[in-house]
Amino acid sequence: MTTQCETIIDNLRLATMTNNGEPYGAIDNGLIAITDGKIVFAGARSDCTLQAHQHIDGNQHWALPGFIDCHTHLVYAGSRAGEFEQRLQGVSYEQIARQGGGIKSTVAATRQASSETLLALAKQRASRLFEEGVTSIEIKSGYGLDLPTETKMLRVAKQLEDSLPIHIETTYLGAHAVPPEFSHNPQGYIDFVCNTALPYIKEHQLAGCVDVFCENIGFSLAQCRQVFESATQLGLKVKGHVEQLSNMGGAKLACEYRALSVDHIEYLAPADVPALKVHDTVAVLLPGAFYYLHEKTLPPIDALRQHKIPIAIATDLNPGTSPVASLLTSVNMASVLFGLTPEEGLAGITRNAAKALGLHHKGQITQSFDADFTLWDIEQPAQIVHEINTHRPSAIWCGGKHVR
Amino acid sequence: MTTQCETIIDNLRLATMTNNGEPYGAIDNGLIAITDGKIVFAGARSDCTLQAHQHIDGNQHWALPGFIDCHTHLVYAGSRAGEFEQRLQGVSYEQIARQGGGIKSTVAATRQASSETLLALAKQRASRLFEEGVTSIEIKSGYGLDLPTETKMLRVAKQLEDSLPIHIETTYLGAHAVPPEFSHNPQGYIDFVCNTALPYIKEHQLAGCVDVFCENIGFSLAQCRQVFESATQLGLKVKGHVEQLSNMGGAKLACEYRALSVDHIEYLAPADVPALKVHDTVAVLLPGAFYYLHEKTLPPIDALRQHKIPIAIATDLNPGTSPVASLLTSVNMASVLFGLTPEEGLAGITRNAAKALGLHHKGQITQSFDADFTLWDIEQPAQIVHEINTHRPSAIWCGGKHVR
Repeated sequence: MTTQCETIIDNLRLATMTNNGEPYGAIDNGLIAITDGKIVFAGARSDCTLQAHQHIDGNQHWALPGFIDCHTHLVYAGSRAGEFEQRLQGVSYEQIARQGGGIKSTVAATRQASSETLLALAKQRASRLFEEGVTSIEIKSGYGLDLPTETKMLRVAKQLEDSLPIHIETTYLGAHAVPPEFSHNPQGYIDFVCNTALPYIKEHQLAGCVDVFCENIGFSLAQCRQVFESATQLGLKVKGHVEQLSNMGGAKLACEYRALSVDHIEYLAPADVPALKVHDTVAVLLPGAFYYLHEKTLPPIDALRQHKIPIAIATDLNPGTSPVASLLTSVNMASVLFGLTPEEGLAGITRNAAKALGLHHKGQITQSFDADFTLWDIEQPAQIVHEINTHRPSAIWCGGKHVR
Repeated sequence: MTTQCETIIDNLRLATMTNNGEPYGAIDNGLIAITDGKIVFAGARSDCTLQAHQHIDGNQHWALPGFIDCHTHLVYAGSRAGEFEQRLQGVSYEQIARQGGGIKSTVAATRQASSETLLALAKQRASRLFEEGVTSIEIKSGYGLDLPTETKMLRVAKQLEDSLPIHIETTYLGAHAVPPEFSHNPQGYIDFVCNTALPYIKEHQLAGCVDVFCENIGFSLAQCRQVFESATQLGLKVKGHVEQLSNMGGAKLACEYRALSVDHIEYLAPADVPALKVHDTVAVLLPGAFYYLHEKTLPPIDALRQHKIPIAIATDLNPGTSPVASLLTSVNMASVLFGLTPEEGLAGITRNAAKALGLHHKGQITQSFDADFTLWDIEQPAQIVHEINTHRPSAIWCGGKHVR
């Protein structure tokens, strides 16, 4: 018996990114069938018995899952290019900090910016990601630190869905830095985050996840535990910026709280890697920050592989340490700088990035998953990792719609 | 007395990249006046007495000279992504070489490709550069090594001018590698380059410049001298891939022959830098190859600065060691990896890149120069160096025409 579906895109080479035993989960002579925004069939043409209202020729292009940037800070105002320039001219970090530079300047500019300005700036950055085939983006707050600005950032982030055909996940990162109002009372700020901000975020459903910056220049292990404890009690999921500049034990702490992901992790000790296994926490690598900060210590890639920890890759798009509006360039850096294979790199922005956001129906081209995918006129998937800024999708489908 | 011009773009912030004493050669409240493809005035609005047939509001955008990519190999067929993938999977260089990988595979694919195929592939790559504001590109031969394919490459390169509104400079790089026909007789190949190929290239005006790969894995100093000698006798200018992997003395040799530029130069000894001063040879830095090859030795930046050698930056766009179709990402790498300031970086893809190609009327926004420039909706020029893939020109003018 044949049944009907909305659309079939035929004559494709599928990089399903499922674990089907083939590199890239590949299926030759494939097709994708869509109904109501979902994939109702993805596989070999010869196995498909569906009839479609609309039948599209895929011209032997490769299909990949829509890319997922699972760690960004792309809603912000102001530019840190002036500081970048000063540092290259020989001005010291200390001098720049005395001038009110660094994250302070981004907080000041973001507090001052209207929602309209923030949205226009964020849209430009998200558009660059979308042009490369990114269909889902996680965006963190953390440049307001007071409640009005943090909620403004989170609302603007979600509004991007009205401007671009992309899916947005929002994360509350109140514990990003100590705001000027609390400069002599960091613990008072953490109490505010836990007792005032988190309940408000939860009540107004502004974010599904809570993040912290666990670091000597961020928040202590005890303070991060307090935030995780409050978030968990409210039913919010957690993740953490951990082990970026030193080994503080943040990853193990986050895993105790069933973190979706631990991010950065250059200083994660190989011996601590098994902790990620317990609740299937994803290791999110951010090679852009590694590159800009001239970091020399590599994340524990071999240990992650050995323990089969899912590895994701993200842009960390932010104004200071990773102004990189290209997820494919980030994947290229993960290969060139960290030694990931192109297949690991592409899994890192599809299947594993979805897992890092708790999105159980994205990141793979397979039945019952969201119909988010892109087509590419290339010979092999490794090309889009190897060749910087060379390829663009010939088509982008998001939520079952042909959006570009 | 006021006189008439074709077009005025008014209300601009000019980064003229001239040596006018201001950072970036900046002029506030500026305008550009154009007639017959040339800039007839560029400066403060208040100093301009011209009337224009067409008057355009520049909306306070920054104007920069059209970017110049002065070192590319962007005409080629085939992909080396498979080798990139194999290396990351642990396959050795030797094994890949035995499979016919490396430059050999690009030569085989380029010999086999039709002009139409080569043009389509090259156009895709050049388009990516153009979208970022590149209006002039140098393209080298060197993946044919036999005369039919080398001339095919050079003709295709020049044909790009019919496909895109860009200026192309072609360079003959016969001495790129030893072709299979001469594998046991490299000197015989150099004799062919000098006695057969060069006179043909000259007669048919296929290239204005001649390049060599002076390296242990390329050609010896004596062989490069022979090529330079023949080229010079024919009235062709020269340049060289020198001191990329070792210090062979290629830069000093090239300077003896009044080379327009010496390119790569990671292994150039600071003591040899003054040789560049004698005939005003440009130092061309190629950070993409440095990045892909995990090179640790930096070019002698301080010595270049000390001796006021003009520094240019290029993509080196090629299928193996620098598949980077982004001149702005290359400039970013020059800042992050080599420590160049954003102003040095932008001079490196404008004023100094023009010099590296002997283009005396490009690379600056000033009277009598070609009207090749781009407009940018940014606060400061450093932003386009600092922020990867974030900005695109709001307008591109080439040869006095508004082409995008």
